[in-house]
Amino acid sequence: MTKQETIQETIKTKPQTATWIWYPGDFEIRLHEKMSVKRRARGVPYPAYWRLDRHYSNVKFRYTYDLPHEEQISIKAEGSYSLYLDGRDNYRSDEPVITLPAGRHEISVSVFNDVEMPALFIEGPNLRTDATWEATSYQNDWVSAGTWTFESPSVPPSAFRLAVAPQEPASVEEVQGHPLLDFGRETFGYLRFHNLQGKGKVRIYYGESMSEALSIAECYSLDRFDAGEAALQAEGGIYTLGAAKAFRYAWIHADPGTTWDRVSMLYEYVPVTYRSAFECSDSKLNEIYAMSLYTLHLNTREFFLDGIKRDRWVWSGDAYQAFLMNYYSFFDLDVTRRTLIALRGKDPLVMHFNTILDYSLYWFVSLYDYYLYTGDFAFIRHYYDRAASLMDFCLAQRNEEGLVEGRQQDWVFVDWADLDNSGAVSTIQILLARGLEAMSAFAAELDDPVASGSYRSLAEELKAKTLSLFWDEARGGLLHHRADGVTQPMLTKHANMFAMTFGYLSPAQQERVIHSVMLNPEVPQIRTPYMRFHEMATLCESRQHDHVLQEVRDYWGGMIDLGATTFWEEYDPSLADDAHYGMYGVTFGKSLCHAWGAGPIYLFGKYFLGVRPLSAGYGTFVVEPQLGGLGWMKGTVPTAGGEVEVDMDASRIRVRATGGHGVLRYRKGGQTIESPIPEDGSWLEASLH
Amino acid sequence: MTKQETIQETIKTKPQTATWIWYPGDFEIRLHEKMSVKRRARGVPYPAYWRLDRHYSNVKFRYTYDLPHEEQISIKAEGSYSLYLDGRDNYRSDEPVITLPAGRHEISVSVFNDVEMPALFIEGPNLRTDATWEATSYQNDWVSAGTWTFESPSVPPSAFRLAVAPQEPASVEEVQGHPLLDFGRETFGYLRFHNLQGKGKVRIYYGESMSEALSIAECYSLDRFDAGEAALQAEGGIYTLGAAKAFRYAWIHADPGTTWDRVSMLYEYVPVTYRSAFECSDSKLNEIYAMSLYTLHLNTREFFLDGIKRDRWVWSGDAYQAFLMNYYSFFDLDVTRRTLIALRGKDPLVMHFNTILDYSLYWFVSLYDYYLYTGDFAFIRHYYDRAASLMDFCLAQRNEEGLVEGRQQDWVFVDWADLDNSGAVSTIQILLARGLEAMSAFAAELDDPVASGSYRSLAEELKAKTLSLFWDEARGGLLHHRADGVTQPMLTKHANMFAMTFGYLSPAQQERVIHSVMLNPEVPQIRTPYMRFHEMATLCESRQHDHVLQEVRDYWGGMIDLGATTFWEEYDPSLADDAHYGMYGVTFGKSLCHAWGAGPIYLFGKYFLGVRPLSAGYGTFVVEPQLGGLGWMKGTVPTAGGEVEVDMDASRIRVRATGGHGVLRYRKGGQTIESPIPEDGSWLEASLH
Repeated sequence: MTKQETIQETIKTKPQTATWIWYPGDFEIRLHEKMSVKRRARGVPYPAYWRLDRHYSNVKFRYTYDLPHEEQISIKAEGSYSLYLDGRDNYRSDEPVITLPAGRHEISVSVFNDVEMPALFIEGPNLRTDATWEATSYQNDWVSAGTWTFESPSVPPSAFRLAVAPQEPASVEEVQGHPLLDFGRETFGYLRFHNLQGKGKVRIYYGESMSEALSIAECYSLDRFDAGEAALQAEGGIYTLGAAKAFRYAWIHADPGTTWDRVSMLYEYVPVTYRSAFECSDSKLNEIYAMSLYTLHLNTREFFLDGIKRDRWVWSGDAYQAFLMNYYSFFDLDVTRRTLIALRGKDPLVMHFNTILDYSLYWFVSLYDYYLYTGDFAFIRHYYDRAASLMDFCLAQRNEEGLVEGRQQDWVFVDWADLDNSGAVSTIQILLARGLEAMSAFAAELDDPVASGSYRSLAEELKAKTLSLFWDEARGGLLHHRADGVTQPMLTKHANMFAMTFGYLSPAQQERVIHSVMLNPEVPQIRTPYMRFHEMATLCESRQHDHVLQEVRDYWGGMIDLGATTFWEEYDPSLADDAHYGMYGVTFGKSLCHAWGAGPIYLFGKYFLGVRPLSAGYGTFVVEPQLGGLGWMKGTVPTAGGEVEVDMDASRIRVRATGGHGVLRYRKGGQTIESPIPEDGSWLEASLH
Repeated sequence: MTKQETIQETIKTKPQTATWIWYPGDFEIRLHEKMSVKRRARGVPYPAYWRLDRHYSNVKFRYTYDLPHEEQISIKAEGSYSLYLDGRDNYRSDEPVITLPAGRHEISVSVFNDVEMPALFIEGPNLRTDATWEATSYQNDWVSAGTWTFESPSVPPSAFRLAVAPQEPASVEEVQGHPLLDFGRETFGYLRFHNLQGKGKVRIYYGESMSEALSIAECYSLDRFDAGEAALQAEGGIYTLGAAKAFRYAWIHADPGTTWDRVSMLYEYVPVTYRSAFECSDSKLNEIYAMSLYTLHLNTREFFLDGIKRDRWVWSGDAYQAFLMNYYSFFDLDVTRRTLIALRGKDPLVMHFNTILDYSLYWFVSLYDYYLYTGDFAFIRHYYDRAASLMDFCLAQRNEEGLVEGRQQDWVFVDWADLDNSGAVSTIQILLARGLEAMSAFAAELDDPVASGSYRSLAEELKAKTLSLFWDEARGGLLHHRADGVTQPMLTKHANMFAMTFGYLSPAQQERVIHSVMLNPEVPQIRTPYMRFHEMATLCESRQHDHVLQEVRDYWGGMIDLGATTFWEEYDPSLADDAHYGMYGVTFGKSLCHAWGAGPIYLFGKYFLGVRPLSAGYGTFVVEPQLGGLGWMKGTVPTAGGEVEVDMDASRIRVRATGGHGVLRYRKGGQTIESPIPEDGSWLEASLH
């Protein structure tokens, strides 16, 4: 097919709808810039403490058309724009409607916008902006234009807002003469005052817990407004506050003479579909699963956030887990992609993601998981260069032994725990090796065997070195770190968990790790849901399902017993009363709705219902259900091409699936049996007796 | 002195005035972003076609104070801000007035602004923002805060505007029933309508020439407005147009019934001091000098522009010359520094400055000249890292022979001429060598002998290689370029001029170049004032002053004879009538007020009055006046520490100077004589007989 034919073909098959286009990645980067400064601590701005990348203000778009007849097009841009044909840049137009000549021509449109992201919308009978247009930031970088769901000229990308829905409080009671609203569970949105009257001040004290809302002096979130001014902004008799908050309770103090009919809220959310389900014979676990979904949903927003009260930021290690939970629940790829792009940001790479060395490394693993669960290689292709340059940046940090160490300016996090992360930390090497494997897989998919082989060798070398330098045969695990060329005696679970999950240990080593490290009470216990996520996964991979269920009942169930309606940033059963709500030396500093608290979604979907992709996009997958001591369980896991339903009790497993080639794996009479799952969506039943 | 004493000392000696502070360089970068999109071609935006860098939206400031008593401070910021003490970032305030505790404390203020540059102004009895505060962009980069002349809390950096002054047209005549305003000479600013009445449309056609203003269909700049809407925006009965333009003429068409009393303008300018003077026995040259000053002044704006009608952009090669002219006229260092910072922009370096390889290289030479003429090493120190990384970027482009070549995406400009700049161009190597010498000098000044020596070796190596590969002994000059390992036969003046000016040629080679290249009519002639600038300088350095004066009379005088009131982008005496005004295939595309047209300022100051710094900041300098056939001349050149006055005729030289150690050098009786210039400012007189 000649080039000209390609173009005519393109025009013929154009979608009927034009769409806003922009420089790819800039929508996410601009949105991330805005969202990263939404956090308020007692009403005072608390911006993220890393460089916030910005959209290119000066961009250009181009497209070559071939039209049999002249055609009138209308042009809309966010920003000032000018259009010209065939490179004649001295002859420009900024008219909103122009007539394009017939024939083959290259159309160029420059757009400048230093406030919102430059974007373009062109609509004609045949010629329309869409992802087949190209964009440049004037850096020798003509790339496919970015697009999403903006198909109306009157709703440009900068107008993007999450969905909202009105909600009423579950109860209102007077406390010390002021109304205390209880919305029944943790929520997020904008309070609304109906028929506000008077001229006084109104003060609102929010709480994720009742104690917090009733603590005027120490609640984390608050609002203040002047009723007179507010009434002027009311629409249809309703004044909606400007800034959304996370809360369950709101205690409202008003000056005398200031009144309203009632206070409700606008719940703000991403309209995800709850595509997963899990139900079992233990109602506590069912409650934990439902609460996990809601916890994750609240944190599934413009991006996957760490927590909705605090920090309201995009943290790469937190997002890594949210991505996995999402694959086992909403399977919302828009939020996933937005988060991956925002985290990578722009060049130059100076600091690590969120200033944390491990958080740069998680990003590669997240990208690989995205590919594995969705099969969407087009996305990987778009961002491969940014991944490769990030890898260069990470590799440049290797010490003379070839191990990556934190620089002076780096935070080596690993976990919220009292860890000495100086020198080369084993967990870091394992995450880097996994990142290198991901890069190798991407390069192979891009038909670049040289790059693929090079990444593969680096990964193998690093894995071998890590095992040789950190493995302590006597203690049966990987030691924590190595300083000044000497591996230090500290033993932690962290590196062992990742090495096991990534398949870096021999069966004998795995066995040692389970018993000498994971189940060894002498090894420091993990206190954050963040690392418990990995810990529980690792235990499941070692078939410790019964143990895991008991942990879930105790740990997540413990929060529910304390009145949680969403899961917390951290939970220490030894604390009493309001001490649970403090963190970072701040009385109500703890986030009570933290994405990483929703780990049971992943555990139940991947390790109990047992659904796992074996190749990209669930092209092939396995279903290996485990009751873990439950009487029965049933549930659904969404996949790239459909879904998997599982229904199991002690006597039989029923499974059905749509999309991809699945296999049911189970044990019967001491044997492992694999049965193909019917591809017509009908049930497969396997008797366990 | 202990650290604490230092701080108390600092407080004691604090200036009485607080000043706005910001992340250093961002004021210039934000201003450059705004100015780079001011160009309009027939009213249509024509933005610069390179990446426009942007200010950091998220920054933090810090300062450690030690106060004997608590103190109330007031805080103003451009952007949302929060303040905390002693790293307690969970306890922030955004109150506009707070009381600081006594004692030693670290104050931190985070400021976010995604529209204008984040800036901070704090004022208390003792504690005030100034350049001793530090700023970070959260990239492990605590640096001295940027400041300038913003000392009023009510005039923040984003309010920066050039000065304006009302001006009246020199004449108004009716042409085809519409008033044609003539402001007497080229100017720049905003038209103003006094007592505008009626509701019709008004159209304004601007012209740098009368032909342009009278060409409704082809004039480059135009305005359109609705008189009814405009009248609403009038202040004191005067409607001032929103966008400034370059013009001498304005032809105004209005719908019937739309009237005004008169039209004037607001001239917009930088209030520079005309610190230089030149007067001689040839009144034509005096006229050329005055017109050069005015041409340069009009282009001396937020930055040194190429031209005020077109492009209104900051081009590095153009600025290189404007910097030199400025040292011999206004000595305005603010515009110089702003331009140097804006040109360098931010990382990552992907494309060369203005997309042009040579333009990155001129920047090093410009930076060196800044140091030589001003002695301000503090500025160099601030930007040394950005210079070093730019040099890395340039050096990475060396081919296997060690010569720098343009990449596919690079524009190798050299000159507006029909040049083949493929392969390794000799001019580029010479500019790079000069850049390396500059870097070596800076590194030495920074007490980094290793870096200094390394840059020096690279420079020496490159110079030697260039001379060996490009010098053609038979033809007596450096050939133009080398492709595929073979030096091509093309001979041009360009590399020869730079090699001579930078002192890279032996006396014998210099002699050959003058006669075989510079004065050889067979070698392609230079047609742009851009390269004539260098050509004339080179001829002066070879003591061809008489020849140069004749060239100046012909070339610059030729433009005056054609009615120029400022000097042009290009001048070809062979063209007729309005053909002079065309360029780039656009009828009135040529800029008639182009900075590079003002070269005589530099020639007269440096080579006729003969004033040249010998060491940084005119610590030592030489005055070597040359009449070049003139009967007499007198004049003034500003220096870093004062000024030099020269008064010369055929029989004697009189010179006096303030600041630095100067020496008068002159020839008498076949001998070169050097006499120290008195440091008390009194006249030194040397008889030439």
